[in-house]
Amino acid sequence: MLNVGIVGATGYAGEELIDILLRHKGVRITSISAKIDKPEPISRIFPRFKDKIELICKEPDIKEIVRTCDLVFLALPHTVSMEIAPQLLKAGKKVIDLSADYRLKDTRIYEKFYQTKQKDKLHLAEAVYGLPEIYRAKIKNARLVANPGCYPTVSILALAPLVAFDLVDTDSIIIDAKSGVTGAGRKIAEGFLFSEVNEDFKAYKVNMHQHSPEINQELSKLAGRKIKVTFVPHLLPLSRGILATVYVRKSKKSKAKSQNLINLYKKFYKKEPFVRIRDEGDFPRVKDVAGTNFCDIGIKDNAEGIIVIAVIDNLLKGASGQAVQNMNIMYKFPEDTALL
Amino acid sequence: MLNVGIVGATGYAGEELIDILLRHKGVRITSISAKIDKPEPISRIFPRFKDKIELICKEPDIKEIVRTCDLVFLALPHTVSMEIAPQLLKAGKKVIDLSADYRLKDTRIYEKFYQTKQKDKLHLAEAVYGLPEIYRAKIKNARLVANPGCYPTVSILALAPLVAFDLVDTDSIIIDAKSGVTGAGRKIAEGFLFSEVNEDFKAYKVNMHQHSPEINQELSKLAGRKIKVTFVPHLLPLSRGILATVYVRKSKKSKAKSQNLINLYKKFYKKEPFVRIRDEGDFPRVKDVAGTNFCDIGIKDNAEGIIVIAVIDNLLKGASGQAVQNMNIMYKFPEDTALL
Amino acid sequence: MLNVGIVGATGYAGEELIDILLRHKGVRITSISAKIDKPEPISRIFPRFKDKIELICKEPDIKEIVRTCDLVFLALPHTVSMEIAPQLLKAGKKVIDLSADYRLKDTRIYEKFYQTKQKDKLHLAEAVYGLPEIYRAKIKNARLVANPGCYPTVSILALAPLVAFDLVDTDSIIIDAKSGVTGAGRKIAEGFLFSEVNEDFKAYKVNMHQHSPEINQELSKLAGRKIKVTFVPHLLPLSRGILATVYVRKSKKSKAKSQNLINLYKKFYKKEPFVRIRDEGDFPRVKDVAGTNFCDIGIKDNAEGIIVIAVIDNLLKGASGQAVQNMNIMYKFPEDTALL
Amino acid sequence: MLNVGIVGATGYAGEELIDILLRHKGVRITSISAKIDKPEPISRIFPRFKDKIELICKEPDIKEIVRTCDLVFLALPHTVSMEIAPQLLKAGKKVIDLSADYRLKDTRIYEKFYQTKQKDKLHLAEAVYGLPEIYRAKIKNARLVANPGCYPTVSILALAPLVAFDLVDTDSIIIDAKSGVTGAGRKIAEGFLFSEVNEDFKAYKVNMHQHSPEINQELSKLAGRKIKVTFVPHLLPLSRGILATVYVRKSKKSKAKSQNLINLYKKFYKKEPFVRIRDEGDFPRVKDVAGTNFCDIGIKDNAEGIIVIAVIDNLLKGASGQAVQNMNIMYKFPEDTALL
Repeated sequence: MLNVGIVGATGYAGEELIDILLRHKGVRITSISAKIDKPEPISRIFPRFKDKIELICKEPDIKEIVRTCDLVFLALPHTVSMEIAPQLLKAGKKVIDLSADYRLKDTRIYEKFYQTKQKDKLHLAEAVYGLPEIYRAKIKNARLVANPGCYPTVSILALAPLVAFDLVDTDSIIIDAKSGVTGAGRKIAEGFLFSEVNEDFKAYKVNMHQHSPEINQELSKLAGRKIKVTFVPHLLPLSRGILATVYVRKSKKSKAKSQNLINLYKKFYKKEPFVRIRDEGDFPRVKDVAGTNFCDIGIKDNAEGIIVIAVIDNLLKGASGQAVQNMNIMYKFPEDTALL
Repeated sequence: MLNVGIVGATGYAGEELIDILLRHKGVRITSISAKIDKPEPISRIFPRFKDKIELICKEPDIKEIVRTCDLVFLALPHTVSMEIAPQLLKAGKKVIDLSADYRLKDTRIYEKFYQTKQKDKLHLAEAVYGLPEIYRAKIKNARLVANPGCYPTVSILALAPLVAFDLVDTDSIIIDAKSGVTGAGRKIAEGFLFSEVNEDFKAYKVNMHQHSPEINQELSKLAGRKIKVTFVPHLLPLSRGILATVYVRKSKKSKAKSQNLINLYKKFYKKEPFVRIRDEGDFPRVKDVAGTNFCDIGIKDNAEGIIVIAVIDNLLKGASGQAVQNMNIMYKFPEDTALL
Repeated sequence: MLNVGIVGATGYAGEELIDILLRHKGVRITSISAKIDKPEPISRIFPRFKDKIELICKEPDIKEIVRTCDLVFLALPHTVSMEIAPQLLKAGKKVIDLSADYRLKDTRIYEKFYQTKQKDKLHLAEAVYGLPEIYRAKIKNARLVANPGCYPTVSILALAPLVAFDLVDTDSIIIDAKSGVTGAGRKIAEGFLFSEVNEDFKAYKVNMHQHSPEINQELSKLAGRKIKVTFVPHLLPLSRGILATVYVRKSKKSKAKSQNLINLYKKFYKKEPFVRIRDEGDFPRVKDVAGTNFCDIGIKDNAEGIIVIAVIDNLLKGASGQAVQNMNIMYKFPEDTALL
Repeated sequence: MLNVGIVGATGYAGEELIDILLRHKGVRITSISAKIDKPEPISRIFPRFKDKIELICKEPDIKEIVRTCDLVFLALPHTVSMEIAPQLLKAGKKVIDLSADYRLKDTRIYEKFYQTKQKDKLHLAEAVYGLPEIYRAKIKNARLVANPGCYPTVSILALAPLVAFDLVDTDSIIIDAKSGVTGAGRKIAEGFLFSEVNEDFKAYKVNMHQHSPEINQELSKLAGRKIKVTFVPHLLPLSRGILATVYVRKSKKSKAKSQNLINLYKKFYKKEPFVRIRDEGDFPRVKDVAGTNFCDIGIKDNAEGIIVIAVIDNLLKGASGQAVQNMNIMYKFPEDTALL
């Protein structure tokens, strides 16, 4: 039985982690903590967990976490993770960090986009980017996993086959992404009030979102050359789900050699338990993956360009589901345990 | 041309007042103010008003308001109104107050439910409860109108004919009310986040809401004896609208004399421009009145009891629309000006 | 391994049954059928099930169902169930019927409210009303379970302790219920279009809904005398969940003897895995049970009367979840298998 | 006083026309008709119009329409308009057609995308495309106005300045559009049920929507050369509003000469009462224009390309509001009459 802790349990990602881990037969939640005024049973904070878990949620106490846990999930705002993770790693614990703190290898880019200093360059070097479809082998032995952002997860999965096989003009990548509101976390701000979001739709951080460099980093690695995407996120009036519509022009190689892109995608993701490729003319919608850890992908191949549509649940494949998938890989549980 | 000011312009009721008054041919908005960090064009705060109004929204400056306005709408939280209204009244201005400060004649009840001192007993005495269907004659000459709460408006209109004609067992009144989220104002609190309200529904302040005493006060006056209703409000996952389902048992008088309640209601509200009574078997829904100043009412008369269903738009008949209706009455504009 | 079939798999209840049963380790889905134009993989109808189930959905073929299944779930419109159930029962199969066909013991009432003939009086007699909290013992050995309606489930659970212990004036029961849209099934009618339901709220079938007699039947049994409730359902602009606000006056017995109702409820439902009672001043909301098989109940005890607020997920405890709970009881699986 | 008729009054566009025209001081609605089972007061079909309009809605009777109206709005499905319009025109009436029947000048394209014969080539030739910002002069004297589609309105307004001044690589235009559900009309189909659309988001008719050729036709005219855009529409879970995110690469001319695009747009639309251009870094959201006839546009000018974000209310500027704007132009009413 694996003992796991959750730091940051009162946010949406934390709540979702509890929900998943309660269904996981190989795991016992032994510590729940968060920034909180006074200790309170987690089942009072989230009445849906009443009679299912008895733990008290309190301010994180590193010593206690170290004593009770083997693995710790950090579902924290960025900058907070890199203060806690080093202590846990030093104590021999494994960490899956859902924040952005260990995702960007270039600290200047991190510091520019997150407006804060990268304080843990030591562990940044060893952190594995937790996208199983690309890094499964490394995740197996990782001590510290940087769980990917929601937009990067869906964007990279949508583009990986094209980029890896050099089929797109890498200057042309446009990602028009639309996310449900939980993507922003349980942030108490006017812009996230029901009366503001309901019956509304808007773009935000137009081509300057902090997830852009994360997408660029990973696509560039796959391509073997620098890629800079155009990325425009939008806020959907719904709770869960992201749909990304990706537009690319074909590379010379792609134009030269006609091939079936859908088959290419199917082959690329053949062994992946959580990526599903649609047949021609069939495109996924948010509902197909909401409440699941799947990423569904549809492809349209035109004379001029390629359109890829991909969907995930931002709280599952885009956060907590993927975190548990990473845990399953690290601890050799069947990869889909508690995720179906 | 009537010069009007709006204090508290950045809330939902204030925004709605601007929207209505911009369509009013007899009125000019001359002052817009609110609790605000720094002065800002109101059309930047609400881009929907771009190119329609040029005023700057700033912190309220009583002298300037007095200088530029004949009538002032106070769209403020309770306790703030009773600090500003006296100054305006003293300067000879008229005031329509959308807060609760001047609604409850019994200061002990006010102080119990609003947890604050009633500081302006002087003007409380002369304040007219701004429900035109009951107090139109007094509103005509009022200097200070206490604009009713949203729940009280719909509840009193639903019950007035029955109570006035002694047709109900006054111990038996149950009001099960459901309101859209703007009813709470632009309150930045976790409970009003999109991800909390969306796909949820709940009761709150079960039989202890601060609008209960307001309903009790007015129904008691109509009945000529003390009435205490059971009142349970609920929060609907929609932006605008209230539906109240009212359950009452019949009085002896009512049982003794069979009569057509629908006709009774139609007669009672015959001359009212904003109350519409449905025919038998027909009940109003929120959509029928959203965006309008109407209160629509349907009645079911059973052997045992009576069910009344009434709907309003909480921001219009339940707040800003009714405030403008009161203004129209005070200044002898046709009562529906800018409200159709 | 239990072989189960689902007839009516393309409706919301059918879809939900598939979802639950795919997680059930003791069960194999062996037949899926529905009214359908031409056979089609169920995973194409519901892309969320892609790669999780291979079965083809076709028109129900009784012979094949008999050959492949031990137990059959009927997620059908009323009147259709009573044509299929007898054939399955005759062939020695067990049946859990989610329609209304076997719920009402008085065929005149059935025929009045459902406007159709009761054609299977033979099996009606043996059908067990599938509310485990009341009928668990009988469900264990049932061949035919009449799975309760969603409104009756939440209403009966909210009232059972009060009625069973004679604590309420049984003439006074008012149930003001609010349901999400899936409660109506996948009915293609103007009234259920997004643009009609969104931003709207309404009462419907005011005190004449077909679930009233079902509530009356079961409460009357519990009370040992005839009960007729006032029942007004409303349509919420959300997908899943029911909240019922119940108002009752106290009986003489109740007034005579002061007691803690919350404790009474806790005792009454002590061993129930899916009923949770809230502490004083705490009331459940839809979100607390959405996606779960729980019924959460809060109680307010006033001088004059009692207010009970209860919530369920209409597709789970109100339909498919309860159906699987019944299956678990019938086949001696742990009662919460696949339901947590 | 202008006498107007509405054919197709029971759809969303028809309902909206009634709402606007009831506020228009220079107009009297004299005929209301639609495909309908039996004649019924329009205020019973739409209870929001109770006490505001007395007309009966019945099947269209051309003779009666000719007798009672000067101008007729056709809010009909395509193919139906071109059967009715010729009769009205022959009788000397003016027609504003909200369907697609008279929009596409190339009948082969019409027939390909709408899968039906163009039966009224005679009047097609004289029909004026009713986008006031481009065709105001012609609209003034038009007998037959082809009111633009909702997606084309927002797309053309977003792109017109760039295309007219040759600032974009015309091969590169990508329009990622998102529309509220009323865009589909009151279509009773499974895909538009609340439970399907709510909490969902999807692309549809990926790069094959029937509005593409309409956009291509008008942009090509503006450019003076053939343009074929990439157009992907998506369905938003909200009732009203469209947001289009437009991505283009710069033309040689554009790259050669640095200029302020925002100023260019402001100049281009300087005299337009219903187009508002945002300042740098400011982008419009659906809420800014919902319930209004405005089109708001924001522009981002990058080294590589240009991003334009434009919003309209699909039922107003995208349908009925624009139709009334066209009427105001044709009959010399102030252009914003009843539209503010």
